[in-house]
Amino acid sequence: MSLLVTGSIGLDTLETPFGKRQDVIGGSAVYFSCAASFFTPVRLVGVVGEDWPHDFSKVFDGREVDIAGLEKRKGSKTFRWHGSYLKNMNEAETVVVDLNVLAERAPQIPDSFRDSRHVFLANTHPVLQQQALACLTAPRLIVADTMNLWIQTERTELTNLLKKIDGLVLNDGEVRLLTDKRNLIEAARAVLEMGPKFVVIKKGEHGCLMVTRRDTFVLPAFPADRVVDPTGAGDSFAGGMMGYLATQNSLAPATVKRALAFGTVVASFTISDFALDGLRRATRHTIDERYQEFKNAMNF
Amino acid sequence: MSLLVTGSIGLDTLETPFGKRQDVIGGSAVYFSCAASFFTPVRLVGVVGEDWPHDFSKVFDGREVDIAGLEKRKGSKTFRWHGSYLKNMNEAETVVVDLNVLAERAPQIPDSFRDSRHVFLANTHPVLQQQALACLTAPRLIVADTMNLWIQTERTELTNLLKKIDGLVLNDGEVRLLTDKRNLIEAARAVLEMGPKFVVIKKGEHGCLMVTRRDTFVLPAFPADRVVDPTGAGDSFAGGMMGYLATQNSLAPATVKRALAFGTVVASFTISDFALDGLRRATRHTIDERYQEFKNAMNF
Repeated sequence: MSLLVTGSIGLDTLETPFGKRQDVIGGSAVYFSCAASFFTPVRLVGVVGEDWPHDFSKVFDGREVDIAGLEKRKGSKTFRWHGSYLKNMNEAETVVVDLNVLAERAPQIPDSFRDSRHVFLANTHPVLQQQALACLTAPRLIVADTMNLWIQTERTELTNLLKKIDGLVLNDGEVRLLTDKRNLIEAARAVLEMGPKFVVIKKGEHGCLMVTRRDTFVLPAFPADRVVDPTGAGDSFAGGMMGYLATQNSLAPATVKRALAFGTVVASFTISDFALDGLRRATRHTIDERYQEFKNAMNF
Repeated sequence: MSLLVTGSIGLDTLETPFGKRQDVIGGSAVYFSCAASFFTPVRLVGVVGEDWPHDFSKVFDGREVDIAGLEKRKGSKTFRWHGSYLKNMNEAETVVVDLNVLAERAPQIPDSFRDSRHVFLANTHPVLQQQALACLTAPRLIVADTMNLWIQTERTELTNLLKKIDGLVLNDGEVRLLTDKRNLIEAARAVLEMGPKFVVIKKGEHGCLMVTRRDTFVLPAFPADRVVDPTGAGDSFAGGMMGYLATQNSLAPATVKRALAFGTVVASFTISDFALDGLRRATRHTIDERYQEFKNAMNF
């Protein structure tokens, strides 16, 4: 039931009303892997530069994250992102971004990963996402994320990608940009026309929405009175969702709802502290407890 | 179990991407009464001018709405509002507002209404809301709405009102303005410090949030793929919620959750067509059906 993720790994500098953290470990694939590893073993594919200062075996200490697909590239520099939430806790303002090694060729998918059944293509150039897909021999569930940049500049390649995936995960602003529809259900249905079987729209503090050809399912966010750092919330959500789905042999509505709820709960740990700290303090036990609390709160 | 509502009655001109309606019946008390009357008899208190062109017995035809508290005031003009959703379906832009009779003295509460147990003070000047309250002999559940204008200009009177009510219903922007806190749970808790036992925050297309001293409860909006006219959604939500609560002898968490869910469902009918048309087409049967659908969708 291995779950493969390809995505970014980087060093983040984060500013929120609660303080600042400099050069901490971040990136979509890192949050996703941490979050998904509560549910299922994860195979991580990513690349950093030779300046990478951390020991990867320690980053995922105690977690079932296989780092065989992790490349430390000589002569290259690690991806860096400096984001600020000082103005708006719901949307990061990018202060500085250095793509560095992310702007080069993609990391190789190891032979031992090619048989992965569940695949999450975290946000990156849609050509790289398709290249990763082409390496896999028997994918059963392929889900991708994307972002405004590719919607605006690489629509043709993104459209090609959409024909090859089962699910697309993106935020409300992105799906509106992609479809030019403001109503989110209409927008999601327009995405379904482009290929995917399901669309998950992340709305940050307002929860999420999943649309398939047959069903629409909405969930609020887990009510949080203290949001310290929203970085990685969306990737943690996707990690919790895909991690749970990888343990199930079903995309039945009930299964999918539980997957979204697990994603929601896992993300609520992420935002409770800076960077990976909140997620690192979570355990499968505290996740299951909060899941039950959320389930009860939803049940009327 | 009669439910008293005091609030505005007016003539609305509405513009949405789906078209325009001129001089149609509107006002907070009208939407509230229609919505609540699916659950319980309603006592309506409000005032219009002598220019009011409609027959009130026909407005609430077939509904248990007692219009004994409705005054048609000679020499005064009816409240008029012209709102546009052309730029943003989530927030009306006021094109023209003529308070007219609403800027004069409040309508009298008839003696036959003074024993009302459940009371909803729809948005108006907080002094008028307190005057209405002072006329009641045995209120058991008092809930009020308010708006930015009073938060900004009548904070002292609003603070006085808050000490006298059980619940406050307002939208996310308003609660942030009232408390100067951006996190909605923190903001709601700050309102609880001012007096009410519960706060309901309406988030439009993102659903609602209720906070009491012990519980926090969140609900998404009913997923709607066709929002024709959001006018009256908040008042319909409050009507559905209060209408259901008036039939229950409890503020237990399970009861309150069901009340919020009924409010959510009733509002989903309102926004499906212009002005009162969507709500008018609803029946208790279709409301119960949609409630069940919503309940199932929330259950995972």
